[in-house]
Amino acid sequence: MSDMDYGEEALKKHKKLRGKIGVELKDTLDSKDKLSIYYTPGVAAVSSYVAKNPDETRNYTWLNNSVAVISDGSAVLGLGNIGPYGALPVMEGKCMLFKHFANIDAVPIVLNVHIADEIVAAVKAIAPSFGGINLEDIAAPICFEVEERLKEELDIPIMHDDQHGTAIVVLAGLINAMKVVGRELSDAKIVVAGAGAAGTAIIKLLHLYAKPRIFAVDSKGVIGANRNDLNDEKKKLLKYSNFSDTDGSLEDILQGADVFIGVSKAGLLTPDMVRSMDKKPIIFAMANPTPEIMPDIAKSAGASIVATGRSDFPNQVNNALAFPGIFRGALDNQVRMITDDHKIAAAKAIAELVEKPDSEHIIPSVLDDRLVPAVSKVVR
Amino acid sequence: MSDMDYGEEALKKHKKLRGKIGVELKDTLDSKDKLSIYYTPGVAAVSSYVAKNPDETRNYTWLNNSVAVISDGSAVLGLGNIGPYGALPVMEGKCMLFKHFANIDAVPIVLNVHIADEIVAAVKAIAPSFGGINLEDIAAPICFEVEERLKEELDIPIMHDDQHGTAIVVLAGLINAMKVVGRELSDAKIVVAGAGAAGTAIIKLLHLYAKPRIFAVDSKGVIGANRNDLNDEKKKLLKYSNFSDTDGSLEDILQGADVFIGVSKAGLLTPDMVRSMDKKPIIFAMANPTPEIMPDIAKSAGASIVATGRSDFPNQVNNALAFPGIFRGALDNQVRMITDDHKIAAAKAIAELVEKPDSEHIIPSVLDDRLVPAVSKVVR
Repeated sequence: MSDMDYGEEALKKHKKLRGKIGVELKDTLDSKDKLSIYYTPGVAAVSSYVAKNPDETRNYTWLNNSVAVISDGSAVLGLGNIGPYGALPVMEGKCMLFKHFANIDAVPIVLNVHIADEIVAAVKAIAPSFGGINLEDIAAPICFEVEERLKEELDIPIMHDDQHGTAIVVLAGLINAMKVVGRELSDAKIVVAGAGAAGTAIIKLLHLYAKPRIFAVDSKGVIGANRNDLNDEKKKLLKYSNFSDTDGSLEDILQGADVFIGVSKAGLLTPDMVRSMDKKPIIFAMANPTPEIMPDIAKSAGASIVATGRSDFPNQVNNALAFPGIFRGALDNQVRMITDDHKIAAAKAIAELVEKPDSEHIIPSVLDDRLVPAVSKVVR
Repeated sequence: MSDMDYGEEALKKHKKLRGKIGVELKDTLDSKDKLSIYYTPGVAAVSSYVAKNPDETRNYTWLNNSVAVISDGSAVLGLGNIGPYGALPVMEGKCMLFKHFANIDAVPIVLNVHIADEIVAAVKAIAPSFGGINLEDIAAPICFEVEERLKEELDIPIMHDDQHGTAIVVLAGLINAMKVVGRELSDAKIVVAGAGAAGTAIIKLLHLYAKPRIFAVDSKGVIGANRNDLNDEKKKLLKYSNFSDTDGSLEDILQGADVFIGVSKAGLLTPDMVRSMDKKPIIFAMANPTPEIMPDIAKSAGASIVATGRSDFPNQVNNALAFPGIFRGALDNQVRMITDDHKIAAAKAIAELVEKPDSEHIIPSVLDDRLVPAVSKVVR
């Protein structure tokens, strides 16, 4: 099916189902005895017990298995700032993925507040209801402050998936892509187009993992110390990228690069730019739904490996490879904070599932049922 | 089983189940096509559509059937201010009742904020996620301000069940109790012991329905204009009660009363007090888990009709008679605010389900499956 066909089918299916998720009960309520056990008066004993022993709450409630998928609707898919109602179908979809892949009970929470202080306050207020928090589709740069503050102030696992889910899967794919082309990540020149949530997290994680030469590019060109239009978050990228203080355009900086990582917009990358890269160029063209360059065009221009965010091409770089296992592990192992070590371990675990990587198989399928066990095992 | 047995059984069952509710999917996710329809890229068409047509969100998401059960844990059952973790098992139980009785997908949200401004801000922030909001176990007097402000500021149905669910069921029971003893509610002298959330709402609804002579009693005695220790909410009760500016104790004011309504504490009502009431006294002793007076003692002292909150005695005055149908009707009929007219109509609908009321049958069983259809029909 084409994207448009998927859209039409999606409108039909969503209207028919009127919501993709619901609540299920773990026992029936068909007698007065059961009402008295699960509700009043019996539940009072449970409430008294966990009020005195808050850490035990997870053993008596759904806290051990519940995640809130929270968005303010400010950066939804490729649609931008469409608000909480527009975000709700996506968050419900994400909750489906949580349940299907990792048997996690995830609930969509869309917010009608949009500044960092208010988002943080709302999430902190409802945090005791959930065992973990997946932040989703919150625009940069607010997403950075929101996630950092919540991680500091709450003791349940919190992950902004647009940042870290993407970064983990990109690292997983790059580990195998490097094997395929016979190079070391630490020697690579990497150009990251797009310096929002995903681009920033990718740059940080790649730097942490292998310290390659990274250059970040936004709509104004290469991000470097000579730019006087950088916000604080982009300035921070200079700790991880462009140590040579190079200026220039995307076209300039791509010359001789080994890897292009696009989290930007459709059609950004031209065949000529691919040709200007080093031998065996690796292209991660992850703009959704239309990539920075279509795989066949990139291949014709000499790309050795092409990955996209799409399910209809090989090498689908999809957050769903990471987040279900990350949260499954965090919940099962009572991880209170998802760390950089967890992210790197998860990326390696995902990469290792591909026994013999080749140019069309650098990452597993999202439907690979070894994923969640492998990832959850290393998040501990 | 005794209350203690129910408590022990509840601890066992809750520990075994580790949560009483979970999330269920309305379709499987077993193919890349389904991933593309329910998540990206297909869902983008749905998000775009509802972002432009927010009122349509309910037809494409779970908004048409989802309710948040929200508590700050400040007045949980008979346990008091035990906080959000202590409240969670009760809220999960309430969500079970929502699903079982009315097929509503309810989610427990426990808050770690406790002042009115912060509770209102948190609930408003997450409100776009839900089709309705059931406030629960929030202490008086904050509960009044929280509910009033949320009703003003949001356009989805909001009900503080401790107030209005209780009031609706008490009115339903009293309508039939009056038939049994052959009196008119408008002529009755009614003493309400307990002037918190439930007591206040009961007084307001009874006044609105029939303007009986009502006297409210708190731990200091009858609430009247001569008292100088009343908070604002208790002062407001003088608009609905004690027009004779009577002072005195519970014992004093019960003399010659037709009805005692207790939402206070175990053992408050003595046999002598029952004997001092008018002929055929009606006793609603709803303190949980132990009533203001046990039914057999009240009967021995001459009570004509006794109702309690318990399932092991006749005439169980239980919110579960009202709230499932109220929200079912509000969601199905797109009611944006639950009004006094809805509450009175619901009380009448509940009362009418008892075809021939007698002293042991003034209200239907919570397991009566005619309840939700009957109540939901009048909330429109």
